[in-house]
Amino acid sequence: MSPVEKLTEEQIASGLEGVPGWAVKEGKLHRVFQFSDFNEAFGFMTRAALVAESMNHHPEWFNVWNRVVVDLSTHDVGGISGKDFELAGKMNELSGNG
Amino acid sequence: MSPVEKLTEEQIASGLEGVPGWAVKEGKLHRVFQFSDFNEAFGFMTRAALVAESMNHHPEWFNVWNRVVVDLSTHDVGGISGKDFELAGKMNELSGNG
Amino acid sequence: MSPVEKLTEEQIASGLEGVPGWAVKEGKLHRVFQFSDFNEAFGFMTRAALVAESMNHHPEWFNVWNRVVVDLSTHDVGGISGKDFELAGKMNELSGNG
Amino acid sequence: MSPVEKLTEEQIASGLEGVPGWAVKEGKLHRVFQFSDFNEAFGFMTRAALVAESMNHHPEWFNVWNRVVVDLSTHDVGGISGKDFELAGKMNELSGNG
Repeated sequence: MSPVEKLTEEQIASGLEGVPGWAVKEGKLHRVFQFSDFNEAFGFMTRAALVAESMNHHPEWFNVWNRVVVDLSTHDVGGISGKDFELAGKMNELSGNG
Repeated sequence: MSPVEKLTEEQIASGLEGVPGWAVKEGKLHRVFQFSDFNEAFGFMTRAALVAESMNHHPEWFNVWNRVVVDLSTHDVGGISGKDFELAGKMNELSGNG
Repeated sequence: MSPVEKLTEEQIASGLEGVPGWAVKEGKLHRVFQFSDFNEAFGFMTRAALVAESMNHHPEWFNVWNRVVVDLSTHDVGGISGKDFELAGKMNELSGNG
Repeated sequence: MSPVEKLTEEQIASGLEGVPGWAVKEGKLHRVFQFSDFNEAFGFMTRAALVAESMNHHPEWFNVWNRVVVDLSTHDVGGISGKDFELAGKMNELSGNG
């Protein structure tokens, strides 16, 4: 799927099968990551930041202590695109529990 | 003021004078930091993470692109303590606009 | 200048004028950055890491406490390329003393 | 063993048994960490930076791409102390291959 087109509901449903732990919430790809402590959580965030900056596609994310809550959407298309699924998949890999 | 006691409203009002940009919101010290881009925002977060981990006192924070929204409170006292003001002050220094 | 060609000595001499603090050492662009403490040094490294990863062009660098020593070269051309000057310039910007 | 005393050769030899991969080189605890790419290497460095800053005990380290070379010693005692072994052990844990 093209990274810059808004995905249909069907495409999103299909895409979700490839990124365990993610769901659609308020029109965005959403996942809560739980780590053992702040150190592990922030290590994950740094690695995800390197990926996001390279993709020029950045998450909305919230952190407190060992928890990282992520919401992904693509502003330019007003919805969810292939880029969101790509970043979701990479975050799963980096989190070690994807 | 002791870092581990819950501050009174008067103490909080007084403390806020020392940390420009911060206000009380829903019982927490709250500030929105705005940077020029993701790179600068995440550089700030990394420096603040080093401070927070050293203090063993961690923020609730949200980031999207160039914006970092921070909420500080002290779980152990069920409110705002001197530790929150200490971290708020250090974040102001690190942000370059405190 | 093209980022993927090996620069001549003349081109390097000319390029150095645009990146204060850098010199050629053992065939690489070399600079020592001095910060106020580890926090500031590692904040710089994180921001530089985001740039390097986006460029897919990574430094050789050494850190101890408040000091970061950087060497830049381009393996593919066996010397110094425009990419090294680009990264050197960005590091100067990020360091706040370029 | 006390973290602020210079260790004897015997104590060092004994300590090395607890931190696989580390050896003494030029009077410092020395290890080379190898990761899969820059992303993983820098994620490790960020996590180690959080630990080092909390301990107020910082490494000498060198990075290029997926490789991180670490040297640990304790300036105050002019040699290797228990703090170096503590940091070495934590780095092993963080690296996932200690």
